[in-house]
Amino acid sequence: MPVNLSAPVAADLLAINGVRIGIAEAGVRKANRKDLTVFLLDEGVSVAGVFTQNRFCAAPVQICREHLAAGSGIRAMVINTGNANAGTGAAGLANARATCAALAKELELNAGQILPFSTGVIMEELPVDRIVAGLPKAIAAAKADNWATAAEGIMTTDTLPKAFSRSVSIGGKTVAITGISKGAGMIRPNMATMLGFLATDAAIAPELLQPLVKELADGSFNRVTIDGDTSTNDSFVLIATHKAGNAQITTLSSAEGEQLKAALLEVAQKLAQAIVRDGEGATKFISVKVEGGKSEEECRLVAYSIAHSPLVKTAFFASDPNLGRILAAVGYAGIADLDQTQIDLYLDDVHVVIDGGRNPSYKEEDGQRVMKQQEISVRVLLGRGNAAQTVWTCDLSHEYVTINADYRS
Amino acid sequence: MPVNLSAPVAADLLAINGVRIGIAEAGVRKANRKDLTVFLLDEGVSVAGVFTQNRFCAAPVQICREHLAAGSGIRAMVINTGNANAGTGAAGLANARATCAALAKELELNAGQILPFSTGVIMEELPVDRIVAGLPKAIAAAKADNWATAAEGIMTTDTLPKAFSRSVSIGGKTVAITGISKGAGMIRPNMATMLGFLATDAAIAPELLQPLVKELADGSFNRVTIDGDTSTNDSFVLIATHKAGNAQITTLSSAEGEQLKAALLEVAQKLAQAIVRDGEGATKFISVKVEGGKSEEECRLVAYSIAHSPLVKTAFFASDPNLGRILAAVGYAGIADLDQTQIDLYLDDVHVVIDGGRNPSYKEEDGQRVMKQQEISVRVLLGRGNAAQTVWTCDLSHEYVTINADYRS
Repeated sequence: MPVNLSAPVAADLLAINGVRIGIAEAGVRKANRKDLTVFLLDEGVSVAGVFTQNRFCAAPVQICREHLAAGSGIRAMVINTGNANAGTGAAGLANARATCAALAKELELNAGQILPFSTGVIMEELPVDRIVAGLPKAIAAAKADNWATAAEGIMTTDTLPKAFSRSVSIGGKTVAITGISKGAGMIRPNMATMLGFLATDAAIAPELLQPLVKELADGSFNRVTIDGDTSTNDSFVLIATHKAGNAQITTLSSAEGEQLKAALLEVAQKLAQAIVRDGEGATKFISVKVEGGKSEEECRLVAYSIAHSPLVKTAFFASDPNLGRILAAVGYAGIADLDQTQIDLYLDDVHVVIDGGRNPSYKEEDGQRVMKQQEISVRVLLGRGNAAQTVWTCDLSHEYVTINADYRS
Repeated sequence: MPVNLSAPVAADLLAINGVRIGIAEAGVRKANRKDLTVFLLDEGVSVAGVFTQNRFCAAPVQICREHLAAGSGIRAMVINTGNANAGTGAAGLANARATCAALAKELELNAGQILPFSTGVIMEELPVDRIVAGLPKAIAAAKADNWATAAEGIMTTDTLPKAFSRSVSIGGKTVAITGISKGAGMIRPNMATMLGFLATDAAIAPELLQPLVKELADGSFNRVTIDGDTSTNDSFVLIATHKAGNAQITTLSSAEGEQLKAALLEVAQKLAQAIVRDGEGATKFISVKVEGGKSEEECRLVAYSIAHSPLVKTAFFASDPNLGRILAAVGYAGIADLDQTQIDLYLDDVHVVIDGGRNPSYKEEDGQRVMKQQEISVRVLLGRGNAAQTVWTCDLSHEYVTINADYRS
């Protein structure tokens, strides 16, 4: 069961002027599933994206990079579930291009204006005919207030759709932000997650979108992990339709730029955290905060070392304050000159380790109390500098093994 | 159940002239367990060791390094299970020193001639009084043909003791080699494993022992992983008693040096592989061989990326040829300029992936056949050089979660 996460209420999600979304059942892998989603974008809309750094990146990821770089104006996106179109070689690239060409033909665009996304099983041929056959139905279904259905349309092993909205007043104009995400396993985004889409009607200089999407990803999707497996298909896309009527934001460091960025980051973090809350088999949501590092990079190393340790994650599952496992993970994180006598560890407000050893006043019952919670904060103080980083993760349960031993069957 | 591993037969294990071993029940954590082992070494015996690179290394590891560096001639070792004496700060160091001092007093040695080893729960105070009280009984029980009992005496979550012997003729003299190891979880040795002891009666120049133990660790214990968690207590020790009567080996590159090294490596690899075969919850033994790399280092990166992936490991558990997960792990291993179109993948003799895509002649039933085996070989060809590396691992099963959610209770 997801940890403190519920399905979005369709009426709570804000339409974004300039974006329409249509969903269809194309039978990509199984029948009677919403497995095909198209985003239709008005002319003049800006799009930027970040993608997985996995060298086995999927064919659609390669095409997305190519089409965004060409800069001919993205006007539509097509997303299928059920098949990742990764590890598919030259045929996979041809299939992704054929999907773009078919959608472009339907919309009287050129193929370079389409971004394709796929998610599902790796190393299976994409059933491009069934996808192409489903496109007209998806296009016909397109409407602006369809975000909740789109959040369902991109799910794979997710148990709940993930969507959040918020509005923010910028220069007296109300700007709307809505985003959706999916993912529950093979989650350790390195650039972005599989998949996140965030749209706003804010007017913003198009050239700011790429640095903005990178910064948002670094502050949200690039801070979550479920199993340490970086997907072949991670994609995070930011869309700005410029229709809110605000004076165009021309620099991110202006008051208006900071306001928009903060609002976007809030939604991006909720979307990223929702993926962890719905992590495969998750029963707990864990924030790992590492402070006192010499650099953010070494704080991240330690945070991910803790967040990826199967021993730490099974201890959380068991609500067992076997907290020496956290120290072991700190120790093998890869900081060659780390001094264990400088390390402190807190579990929520409980001071567990002081100067690298058990705090004399630490009581097992206090650790036990925190470990039983559904939301747990781990705080490690390295005592060697002023940098800090936070990573969000979940526990490792029997259900994770069950899900991943059964995923294809 | 361990994968193709059975308990050693005491009569098959060769005594090593110059080494006596005694085991006792000291009640370190629980009653009625063989939890205290002492090794008594004749004068003139040489000892070398490699230890964990975990920066949270245990107190006994710190003392071992100190005593080996001091070079006053190691004459005894003391090993307790039930408590790792790690994450214990200054008190932990004092307790490890007290253990050495007590054993030295019993044996009329000085404390610097003792090596201490601990394994068990982290961040709990070592019950040094109970260990000291048990020492006389362990010493009284010492005898040369006690290796099988010693293999039992160092077990924690192991389901089987691990011990191997072999003899080799060097310069017309029969040289004996016997080793024991323990470990089933928190296994991703980085220098050595927790714990391995290997002894030979070969005569060899003492200064060769340290480079030899490093090379043996690199070829055996440093190639296995169960859960990616590098322990705080990993220790691998090589003992040479020089009593076999062979002409002293003065260089490892001589014919005799190579013979001894090969025989030692064979036993070290069996001991290391035995840890994987008895890995927590293991149902399969998997060899991951990466070839065609530019360097051994990048081959290791890829091999460990595969061997640590929870998704790959659960697929092995399920006997599900969901082999795209292996490609994803290759892709995120961290080789920035890896070209996916050069990658081939074999599962035993089955050619699964060619040029980064599914081999057209690959049939799912062939993958299925191999995945059902208890012993599986994964072979990845990177197509960028001539380096190769092999890593041994096991699958990730429900039993792993059960064991680690229950370990302390």
